[in-house]
Amino acid sequence: MSDNHVVDIFLNPKTVAVIGASKNPRKGGYRIINNLLTNNYKGKIFPINPNSDGEVLGLKFNKSLLEIKEDIDLAIFYTPNSVVPDILKDCIKKSVKGALIETAGFEEVGERGLKLRDKIIEVTDNFSKIRIVGPNCMGLTKIDDDSESEEKGGFFSGFGVFNNYKRGNIAIITQSGMLNGGYLMNMMENYPEMGIRYSLSIGNKMDLSEIEFLEYCINDPSVNVIALYLESFKDPRKFIELCKQVKTIPNKTIILLKGGRTTLGQKASSSHTGSLAESKHLIQAIIKQAGIIQAENLHDLFQFARTFSMIYSSGKKLPKYGNVSMMAGSGGAGTISADLTMKYGLTFPIMEEKTYQVLKELYPEWMPPNRFALLDLFPTFEKARMNNVSQKDVMTRIWKTVIDDSNVEGVFNMMFASKRFSNRYDIDEMTHFKTDKIIFMWMVGDTEGILHISRLLNRNHIGTFTSIEEMIKNFSILLQESKNKRIP
Amino acid sequence: MSDNHVVDIFLNPKTVAVIGASKNPRKGGYRIINNLLTNNYKGKIFPINPNSDGEVLGLKFNKSLLEIKEDIDLAIFYTPNSVVPDILKDCIKKSVKGALIETAGFEEVGERGLKLRDKIIEVTDNFSKIRIVGPNCMGLTKIDDDSESEEKGGFFSGFGVFNNYKRGNIAIITQSGMLNGGYLMNMMENYPEMGIRYSLSIGNKMDLSEIEFLEYCINDPSVNVIALYLESFKDPRKFIELCKQVKTIPNKTIILLKGGRTTLGQKASSSHTGSLAESKHLIQAIIKQAGIIQAENLHDLFQFARTFSMIYSSGKKLPKYGNVSMMAGSGGAGTISADLTMKYGLTFPIMEEKTYQVLKELYPEWMPPNRFALLDLFPTFEKARMNNVSQKDVMTRIWKTVIDDSNVEGVFNMMFASKRFSNRYDIDEMTHFKTDKIIFMWMVGDTEGILHISRLLNRNHIGTFTSIEEMIKNFSILLQESKNKRIP
Repeated sequence: MSDNHVVDIFLNPKTVAVIGASKNPRKGGYRIINNLLTNNYKGKIFPINPNSDGEVLGLKFNKSLLEIKEDIDLAIFYTPNSVVPDILKDCIKKSVKGALIETAGFEEVGERGLKLRDKIIEVTDNFSKIRIVGPNCMGLTKIDDDSESEEKGGFFSGFGVFNNYKRGNIAIITQSGMLNGGYLMNMMENYPEMGIRYSLSIGNKMDLSEIEFLEYCINDPSVNVIALYLESFKDPRKFIELCKQVKTIPNKTIILLKGGRTTLGQKASSSHTGSLAESKHLIQAIIKQAGIIQAENLHDLFQFARTFSMIYSSGKKLPKYGNVSMMAGSGGAGTISADLTMKYGLTFPIMEEKTYQVLKELYPEWMPPNRFALLDLFPTFEKARMNNVSQKDVMTRIWKTVIDDSNVEGVFNMMFASKRFSNRYDIDEMTHFKTDKIIFMWMVGDTEGILHISRLLNRNHIGTFTSIEEMIKNFSILLQESKNKRIP
Repeated sequence: MSDNHVVDIFLNPKTVAVIGASKNPRKGGYRIINNLLTNNYKGKIFPINPNSDGEVLGLKFNKSLLEIKEDIDLAIFYTPNSVVPDILKDCIKKSVKGALIETAGFEEVGERGLKLRDKIIEVTDNFSKIRIVGPNCMGLTKIDDDSESEEKGGFFSGFGVFNNYKRGNIAIITQSGMLNGGYLMNMMENYPEMGIRYSLSIGNKMDLSEIEFLEYCINDPSVNVIALYLESFKDPRKFIELCKQVKTIPNKTIILLKGGRTTLGQKASSSHTGSLAESKHLIQAIIKQAGIIQAENLHDLFQFARTFSMIYSSGKKLPKYGNVSMMAGSGGAGTISADLTMKYGLTFPIMEEKTYQVLKELYPEWMPPNRFALLDLFPTFEKARMNNVSQKDVMTRIWKTVIDDSNVEGVFNMMFASKRFSNRYDIDEMTHFKTDKIIFMWMVGDTEGILHISRLLNRNHIGTFTSIEEMIKNFSILLQESKNKRIP
């Protein structure tokens, strides 16, 4: 990644001033400093507050930016909105390179906020004297190392609390602080294998927007998956151009959740980030031209990100044809999955003769297997039980045989995971098995059992889902992306 | 419910013979007897097995039905498929009224199974000499009392293990044993407030089908919600007629998941329950004419059932117009929910003036509330914090005020539930609040926190969902049903 990119100063500043710093642990101006310190920010921090004396977390307060002798790369604002323009004047005087404005109360609050924005444009000479991220945002986070490691942290400039995290290959760029805050944190807690590289809250996008951050993440080889939540497109032409660039990068995927797709949603987004309404047709045209993965809701946005993250970090192959196998200990699950498989444009291929021969041996005579890759495993359990053979061994033989079938690109399984019943799968085998094909598991059972086994499987890049439809949908977006990538 | 309904003998038999009874606890023929006994079956049980001597669970084995002196109401089969026709002859000789055939290996296994079926039709004189449920099913369950109560149980004739259960107002009629077995059991464990009245596994429907069981449940006032999983329609005309009847019953709803809607699904269902393919258009026409709620996947089938169960058991009103309010501590969540609200045909109405006046007081001057019922609560938290007022009290005042608004039929909320953070909602207030309007909560947080609070809220008939889209979809089906009911 280029050292001269405009985003660099916002993610790798050598010195930061926290404007609106506070001694009160309940205030954002305290939490920003605390987040920087506890997450091993390597640069220097200058707390600034004209009304505070003494120290905060061992750092001396300054009354104003102009008191500081060192050069300041980045000023982080957590102040009342009305003082922002004047302090920006100080920043410019001091040649501060970037301002990260977390303060709210601008475009999104109507007339008075628009006046403040005009003032900022005037003071900064249309952002030529200083670059701005925000306002109305939750800060920018760069994760260099897991929270559990000695070298934990990176650059944590937000006022939200961020505890258990893992470095990974996902970048999140959003116009909703929740997605960079509580929601993300809890996704990471529920899916501890989900690793994040950047969590970027861009707020109202007064100056810097999705464009600069997208560009930065595209050029950063540590990022494989870019999850976007946008309430408006700052520059549709450039956005499409950047997305098209990603189509030529084999291990990079962009997923977009667009807020404000409906008239009601636009009404909401205008009072959230001050976004102007965009025509539904324009939005659809942009997404289509961009050739990116679209999520319809928050849950899908993060699930898709998790799925792609796993695929790329494990070096698994994207499917080319959508040929899957479904294995379930229930005929009903088989029928339902068949309907959903078709709904999402996938299919169960005819299996190779060698696969069929192995399966025939494991199925009872009264219920032979299908020739196509939909396996109701129940009869094999019955046969194993009657012959006093281990069901686990039979299961292992079946899924390994099917994965080995060259007509099959990925396998769906159904697993009962319960703290009260023994598992039909040999979890140890599954957690050590290596394959470049996709293995997805539909988890049924009690919450504790599902959580426990999911975490084990996820570590070996086996995707787990608690809904059969979600599992199939997540495979279908891999196929969609593989088709996107083939477009020149 | 009529004492003379054909289903009665299958759910309320005074005497049962278990054919294929076994002493081996790992075999179905043992588990059926164990299930009957441990769940307080009040009638008499006769184990039958020509190859067994002595006793099973304190009950003496009989070599054959014909040895028994008492009249037998119901014979439960758990035998090899090939012996079924001959034993049915014994049943007829002994004037057994019903045969519940859990044995598999009939229509679903092709030619040999079809021959067996023909034999059964011949032996029973086309089911005129004895009525049959199944074959290829998991048994029938009637729950009279919670598993935790002294009088626990009812009639449990399946071979699956059924532990923690609660009597409720849901009847499940399915052609997939999994839905009557493991899947259902774990739904009940994850959602302990979800109570079941009947769990009816009807298998291949050789004789009795969804028609008789549907009729029975429609006439049973203890059932409010009927969840169906069907792979075929036995008698579409009669099915539509029964469904139309339900439209005139204010507190009864039918939800259908139809397996085998696609060519692939039909291929699957034919090897599962021997169902013949039905045209996609026929299926859609039936569902449309029937005017019932359709689920697209298993998860929705049970979630919808849970939602209707809650509405009916708490006496809440179905919405008439789809006018909802969304309250979230995040503008992004507001925008996303607005898009989804429109997608599902709901809307945020303009609130009453009195509501607006209360809200205006609680919002800061720099960020006044909307006039329409979408509330970003974040500014109210900020104001409360600045004024040193309890956020919880402000929250409580807001949601109570909005629920009281006569333009609002139901409210959506977003809650962070975490074991590590204090909750912004006053859970005690929520768990004791009485209203006939619908309150749904989108739960974000860590799994343990969500489970804990969900259970508390569910007990007070507040629906909880872990996906915002699911929450909104579940409200939309209530609106759909309210429209269904208005059709004469």
